[in-house]
Amino acid sequence: MANQVCLVVVLFLCLLCVESKYMMYNTSAGIVPGKINVHLVPHSHDDVGWLKTVDQYYVGSNNSIQVACVQNVLDSLIPALVADKNRKFIYVEQAFFQRWWRDQSEEVQNVVKQLVNSGQLELINGGMCMHDEAAPHYIDMIDQTTLGHRYIKEQFNVTPRIGWQIDPFGHSAVQAYLLSAEVGFDFLFFARIDYQDRAKRINEKTLEVVWRASKSLGSSAQIMTGISPKNYEPPSDNFYFEVGDTSPIVQDDMNLFDYNVPERVNDFVSAAIAQANITRTNHIMWTMGTDFKYQYAHTWFRQMDKFIHYVNQDGRVNALYSTPSMYIDAKYAANESWPLKTDDFFPYADRENAYWTGYFTSRPALKGYVRTMSAYYLAARQLEFFKGRNEVGLSTDSLADALALVQHHDAVSGTEKQHVADDYAKRLSIGYTEAEKVVAASLACLTEFSKNGCVNPITNFQQCPLLNISYCPPSEVDLSSGKSLVVVVYNPLGWKREDIIRIPVINENVTVKDSKGKVIESQLLPLLKDSMSLRNSYSTAYLGKSTNVTPSYWLAFSASVPPLGFNTYIISSAKQAASHSGMRTVYKSQIRQNDTIEVGPGNLKLLYSGKRAKLMRYINSKTSVNKLLEQSYIYYRGDDGSKDLQLSFTILRGPLLDEVHQRINPWIYQVTRVYKGKDHAEIEFTVGPIPIDDGIGKEVVTQITSNMISNKTFYTDSSGRDFIERIRDYRKDWNLEVNQPIAGNYYPVNLGIYMKDNSSELSILVDRSVGGSSIADGQLELMLHRRLVADDNRGVSEALNETVCVFDKCEGLTIIGKYYLRIDPVGEAAKWRRSFGQEIYSPFLLAFTEQDGDHWANSHLATYSAMDTTYVLPDNVALITLQELDSGKILLRLAHLYEIEEDTDLSVMSSVELKKVFPKKKISKVTEMNLSANQERAVMEKKRLVWRVEGSSKEQPTAVRGSPVDPAKLVVELAPMEIRTFVIEFYSER
Amino acid sequence: MANQVCLVVVLFLCLLCVESKYMMYNTSAGIVPGKINVHLVPHSHDDVGWLKTVDQYYVGSNNSIQVACVQNVLDSLIPALVADKNRKFIYVEQAFFQRWWRDQSEEVQNVVKQLVNSGQLELINGGMCMHDEAAPHYIDMIDQTTLGHRYIKEQFNVTPRIGWQIDPFGHSAVQAYLLSAEVGFDFLFFARIDYQDRAKRINEKTLEVVWRASKSLGSSAQIMTGISPKNYEPPSDNFYFEVGDTSPIVQDDMNLFDYNVPERVNDFVSAAIAQANITRTNHIMWTMGTDFKYQYAHTWFRQMDKFIHYVNQDGRVNALYSTPSMYIDAKYAANESWPLKTDDFFPYADRENAYWTGYFTSRPALKGYVRTMSAYYLAARQLEFFKGRNEVGLSTDSLADALALVQHHDAVSGTEKQHVADDYAKRLSIGYTEAEKVVAASLACLTEFSKNGCVNPITNFQQCPLLNISYCPPSEVDLSSGKSLVVVVYNPLGWKREDIIRIPVINENVTVKDSKGKVIESQLLPLLKDSMSLRNSYSTAYLGKSTNVTPSYWLAFSASVPPLGFNTYIISSAKQAASHSGMRTVYKSQIRQNDTIEVGPGNLKLLYSGKRAKLMRYINSKTSVNKLLEQSYIYYRGDDGSKDLQLSFTILRGPLLDEVHQRINPWIYQVTRVYKGKDHAEIEFTVGPIPIDDGIGKEVVTQITSNMISNKTFYTDSSGRDFIERIRDYRKDWNLEVNQPIAGNYYPVNLGIYMKDNSSELSILVDRSVGGSSIADGQLELMLHRRLVADDNRGVSEALNETVCVFDKCEGLTIIGKYYLRIDPVGEAAKWRRSFGQEIYSPFLLAFTEQDGDHWANSHLATYSAMDTTYVLPDNVALITLQELDSGKILLRLAHLYEIEEDTDLSVMSSVELKKVFPKKKISKVTEMNLSANQERAVMEKKRLVWRVEGSSKEQPTAVRGSPVDPAKLVVELAPMEIRTFVIEFYSER
Repeated sequence: MANQVCLVVVLFLCLLCVESKYMMYNTSAGIVPGKINVHLVPHSHDDVGWLKTVDQYYVGSNNSIQVACVQNVLDSLIPALVADKNRKFIYVEQAFFQRWWRDQSEEVQNVVKQLVNSGQLELINGGMCMHDEAAPHYIDMIDQTTLGHRYIKEQFNVTPRIGWQIDPFGHSAVQAYLLSAEVGFDFLFFARIDYQDRAKRINEKTLEVVWRASKSLGSSAQIMTGISPKNYEPPSDNFYFEVGDTSPIVQDDMNLFDYNVPERVNDFVSAAIAQANITRTNHIMWTMGTDFKYQYAHTWFRQMDKFIHYVNQDGRVNALYSTPSMYIDAKYAANESWPLKTDDFFPYADRENAYWTGYFTSRPALKGYVRTMSAYYLAARQLEFFKGRNEVGLSTDSLADALALVQHHDAVSGTEKQHVADDYAKRLSIGYTEAEKVVAASLACLTEFSKNGCVNPITNFQQCPLLNISYCPPSEVDLSSGKSLVVVVYNPLGWKREDIIRIPVINENVTVKDSKGKVIESQLLPLLKDSMSLRNSYSTAYLGKSTNVTPSYWLAFSASVPPLGFNTYIISSAKQAASHSGMRTVYKSQIRQNDTIEVGPGNLKLLYSGKRAKLMRYINSKTSVNKLLEQSYIYYRGDDGSKDLQLSFTILRGPLLDEVHQRINPWIYQVTRVYKGKDHAEIEFTVGPIPIDDGIGKEVVTQITSNMISNKTFYTDSSGRDFIERIRDYRKDWNLEVNQPIAGNYYPVNLGIYMKDNSSELSILVDRSVGGSSIADGQLELMLHRRLVADDNRGVSEALNETVCVFDKCEGLTIIGKYYLRIDPVGEAAKWRRSFGQEIYSPFLLAFTEQDGDHWANSHLATYSAMDTTYVLPDNVALITLQELDSGKILLRLAHLYEIEEDTDLSVMSSVELKKVFPKKKISKVTEMNLSANQERAVMEKKRLVWRVEGSSKEQPTAVRGSPVDPAKLVVELAPMEIRTFVIEFYSER
Repeated sequence: MANQVCLVVVLFLCLLCVESKYMMYNTSAGIVPGKINVHLVPHSHDDVGWLKTVDQYYVGSNNSIQVACVQNVLDSLIPALVADKNRKFIYVEQAFFQRWWRDQSEEVQNVVKQLVNSGQLELINGGMCMHDEAAPHYIDMIDQTTLGHRYIKEQFNVTPRIGWQIDPFGHSAVQAYLLSAEVGFDFLFFARIDYQDRAKRINEKTLEVVWRASKSLGSSAQIMTGISPKNYEPPSDNFYFEVGDTSPIVQDDMNLFDYNVPERVNDFVSAAIAQANITRTNHIMWTMGTDFKYQYAHTWFRQMDKFIHYVNQDGRVNALYSTPSMYIDAKYAANESWPLKTDDFFPYADRENAYWTGYFTSRPALKGYVRTMSAYYLAARQLEFFKGRNEVGLSTDSLADALALVQHHDAVSGTEKQHVADDYAKRLSIGYTEAEKVVAASLACLTEFSKNGCVNPITNFQQCPLLNISYCPPSEVDLSSGKSLVVVVYNPLGWKREDIIRIPVINENVTVKDSKGKVIESQLLPLLKDSMSLRNSYSTAYLGKSTNVTPSYWLAFSASVPPLGFNTYIISSAKQAASHSGMRTVYKSQIRQNDTIEVGPGNLKLLYSGKRAKLMRYINSKTSVNKLLEQSYIYYRGDDGSKDLQLSFTILRGPLLDEVHQRINPWIYQVTRVYKGKDHAEIEFTVGPIPIDDGIGKEVVTQITSNMISNKTFYTDSSGRDFIERIRDYRKDWNLEVNQPIAGNYYPVNLGIYMKDNSSELSILVDRSVGGSSIADGQLELMLHRRLVADDNRGVSEALNETVCVFDKCEGLTIIGKYYLRIDPVGEAAKWRRSFGQEIYSPFLLAFTEQDGDHWANSHLATYSAMDTTYVLPDNVALITLQELDSGKILLRLAHLYEIEEDTDLSVMSSVELKKVFPKKKISKVTEMNLSANQERAVMEKKRLVWRVEGSSKEQPTAVRGSPVDPAKLVVELAPMEIRTFVIEFYSER
């Protein structure tokens, strides 16, 4: 290669530093006490997918959509920083940075390492993406942040100090106390808050606050927070310097025309003084960049060099190259006290009538897929660890990457272009496909229980990712020839657990046996025509081929599985076991009966009006709850106009569950399930294709209406964790001017939404992130799906109009989802919300294989728990990460699920015995880490800046937290809402 | 300065050459015999002003108009070239390159010098701009090319080999034989030729030709010429790689999505084969760039690196980094014969009904200003030399720079935006203001004839650049107090010369004396109201203040001046010399007389019909020419519709000249002058403001109509030099499909246009470049002014609608210009066209000063010639450059003014005696140079490539040229149309 004959010519990039005839710029300014210090923070906001896919953004393809090439940003940045050691830059999105980094030569990497070490290049935020704060689940937020933080730590031995959530459309409490404070950030910066809130804060100089977002953890997890006066861009239209930007450059060459130094210095000083007037301390920060800028970094630095030089010659203000770290250290040194902020920053309106709340629901299929994959990843990592992680070959890493990307604020949020949404789904699918093999291999290993460990297992486990559309080839097999279907049911929770499993089967002559060979109760439910039609079209759409097998029934049975383990069920032809057929029952109701219909085989009964074909009442004989309850669908069209539709229903009854099938309208179908062993109703909705032939987009909402006196108040979770009180048409921080009575009261729902009155609590839990509200007292609503015909003018330039195509025929996307509803006596609802919420998040993982005969258990391990068989985790603790690291160490995260005062029994300190969690290994070392596991917790605590809060009265007692882990006892204490992260090392097993 | 603490970190920019994990690209390909060789020629076409001014383009301001920053191009280019020695680039426009170069440190300059020496960076074309080929005068083309070429020679010791006129809108013969062959180019490349011509050439593989553009110089000044198959851009929409371009990049990272190497290689190969199919030899050139590209050069090179790597792996064609020099050397080595092309490439149509001929006239005021400044610069350089050039301080350099810039193909062409046209005018004005001081100082030196040379001359000479609007403060003085007005008249020609001088005076009591104190004949002409109104509004518009002096008359008198010298005339109050008042005569005619009116005090008589108020007949008693002749104005509106208007007239008669004043319509005014001593008519037209209230743009044309049988044939000059035969509705090179009978027959006129029949020749000479034609037999026309209301969709996005504002009130621009008309017996017209043409180009330069009394000649040198007083240049030779170089040497250019066979007497070899041209100095060395004076002529001749021409029958006898200059005799021979360039050294005078 000719290139190997390397040019000996080296160019001293320090072009500006030689004595010469041309201009030198003095960019060396530091902070000057007593002056307004303008911290110029050069940055590029690089969306990890939005109008283009992440790879298109990286390589700079598809530029007709958006001129953006992150490779150019980083390529051009390094020489620009090397050229002048005073220049600074921050880089944020690790998904891009890692793509670039792995392409660099060792020489360049060494230069970059020097830049990072010297602070010229600061890696901040540090997750793979700048995650959204409404749609992602907190576990996903932790995972994606950890992935980025640990990479940075490995490559550069640094830990990001700054949270930089400049673009997400509202800000969650979890972001503040968990993903900022617990990560070890000293500061969280963002830009998008409600315009009314911003106006008040500008007026009162309260854009910078101490945010104490967790009731439970209080001041122990608060974070100093800076809100930009406007956005994350330069202070006015006048300071953009990308190739092609139109701001006037500083023309300081007197030999050329249009010399403009005085005018430009005046522009700078004016903008600085204006910002200083609304900012405490004499430090102000200018975010010098915006989306995908610095594609030729030189263009920005050249102008900033000149500004710093001439503004400081002018002397009215002091301009300097800075980073958020330099900025906050200066702020901190000022020893100012700051206002206190609690709760969160939802919902967000950028101006009147412009609430960003529809996106809580946008792309419900993608949101559902993300949640499913998130749970799968959690389980798959466990199984990967049990098997032993491969140094090379298959792993869960690509699923980890895909999941990390999709947490981006234009990914799971649904605010990206359609082709980009498709790209995320494709990445998840690729990641899943690999993780699926890891899971299958691990289960094969575990079930084959070879004494030599896991060597070449032979069992071929199949899984059913399309079970939601009734498509599961492994279960759709003819068992009449004597084959059995083996179903291994894996439980990723730390608790023992029972749940109803439903799989499609092709005929009714089947029986279910447990791992001991005992026939267990099962129930067949006919696969109705609507489901079949969806199955056929969507399996064709997704797989590119139609299926030739037609299942007739759902087979339901109850599975009971130990914690972090599995149990096995055998399904075989009923002719060999005729005695069990009597247990199957199938009923069909007559439509439009006049009487009241009671549904539910167990404690919970739902009463329907046959005449109105509608739910009327909720009764639980065990808890003595008896409540009027209605449920309906409406849709919002534009800002008003909604329709309540209800057509017909069908009821299926059986020993395990009853199902109420309702055709709400031609494009909404609903199945309500009441299980014998469960005290909640499960509502499965099928919505779509939403018709838009009338030229009107529609946002489909389900409303649950009771006669509870909820007094405008309801509760929604923050990123799946803390529940925050919401009051209709009200904000704690300012006097809300209501101009959008619906959109302005919507909140993100990741775990659930509830309301209460003096006697009871009505809770709804969800299977993915959605938007929810309580627009009327006694009523809760969820927006389930939306299809629009117009763009919202926020940059996407594309209407949210999802379609699915079977060959050339496309129609609006149909989604299937579930929510769960329960009414409890007041004060007793948290247990269900927390425990069942965790079950929703982590459903059973099913793996199928076939066997001749039904003697599986003779040759295989049929039931298994990774934990000590006598041990389960406390009811208030969930294991949210169990992952083998590359080093052979493991990463463990335990989460207390309850807030303080949430539940009488469970809002207490709890303990986990690590020895019983890992009974088969011997722990050699437990290191408690910060949340993102890039530093020891103790180190983080020690260096954390402690910011002063205005008014001591707002102080609260120090939060309770678990004690350090005693290396001998190895017991982890968890206080309410505490999440503790450990790296655990084991003694070698050899 | 902190920057002086220079970073020790140096970055090896050779990022691609280290063994590593990332991709290496093999870009080392050279020419591969037997394959299609695709020469990738990276370039940026940087207009020296167009939509933005030259400085705005350079620094990158005003980006809202166009995203263009040449500083970025050059800044980013150097590291990109250093990074890979196989990469190449050509740079063209020295105006930009010099701006950049003088800002660079010595380190960078050294790197660039290496790049130039190694051929990685090739400086081609090499003038300050890529001059237009229609509107500039050949002297300006030579000057601007010389300025760039000599700078390149000084800085890099290289001489450009390639003519690169890729954007001008048609191509002149002078460009080919003079500005290419005589400059020493081996190849001329351009892109814009008539679409019909191009189609035929593509079809016949004749896009590459030997262009023999000079009848007189023949094969001794022919140039190998390459015409691009389409334009000067990449071969298809698919190969643009600017930041923000939308061509698909080569995505070769298998780890990312959208890998597209095979598709992109196919795109490349297909485009290469398509071009190879219409090109002789297996070498094709791809112009990889376009207007203002490579603002981040890395983006292009990265993609080209990949193409070269993968295309050559593919192997179907061979791709290589190349330059035009490498390309033509490969072409030359192929030893192919090439078709012959004669004449020129005017007019240009880019498609049907899209002739680029209006611009021949666009911005007539700018075109006029350029011509005036060009002549002034020629004279000022002479005077600068006579005085001795200052090493520092005032010089003619900034006028040289301004004149060079304005030769750009979007400058004097008129195809730029209005604000850019204003910028050129401003630069000319600044340059003039400085040159004016040089001229004044030199004349002061020369007139004061101190024996000690020129030390602190005291005479303050003033000049009158606004004489065209009757504004001349130095002559508008009250002489009644006994002061005299001294008028020094400088003649820049090498011939003795007489001409009528006209200056405004405030009253009639004046007399004119020659330098010997003898009263000479003078004539007063009243300053009519139309002129006064224009004088008042335009002097206010240009000077920002109104004048308080009102001249009443033009004073006309005849001046006689030696070659390269001056004479002095004294104007004083007539009361002291009362005897001369009788010589002044002022007549006014009655409008609409019925009889024929004869005008003209000398041989030439113009006959007007009093009734029709129109010219009828042209009679010269000396030459016996007696011809019917009409003259009229029309205007084109859109494609058709014209009006012949004629209102009233006034006749002024006197001993020196008669004037016919005609108010043609409310916005056209015409003065026809017939001088006693001149055998031509001078027509001064005042056109404007062209009304556009009717929403219709208008192109104002004057038509001269005779009854000559011109047989569709007429002649126009090429850039002020060779006359080329034009035949209406006909092209020599292809069968013209006529779709624009007017626009398609227009040609640029710089010197003149003529037609002839068996008996006579009717010639028109112009005072600036205009468009002209002969749309009907016996008729010639010139387009004098145009004002349009719509843009022509060629990029300017602005209608050509020039206005002039007095304070806030703006109206359409009025222009004043002249043309000169003469009818000669056939075969006798060339003398007037050539000799008087040179006088038009170089009018007398007037300088004024005041003196008490009239004894100027007692204390001053009143008459002067730089040449031997017994010597004048031959009638067929003009001195077109006399300029002192920085080194004290001088640059001399002598031009034979006649083509072969043009004039019986003067189309012959002629001689100039250098000793008599420089009688006061002793010549030590005469070095004959190429035209742009960057190399010795002999060296140039030796290395010139000689291209083979198809068919020996097209060969012609070797042209006659002057012999080498004998160093003893120092006589320069000049053959017809020959221009010879010398650097002359003198023995020191000390």
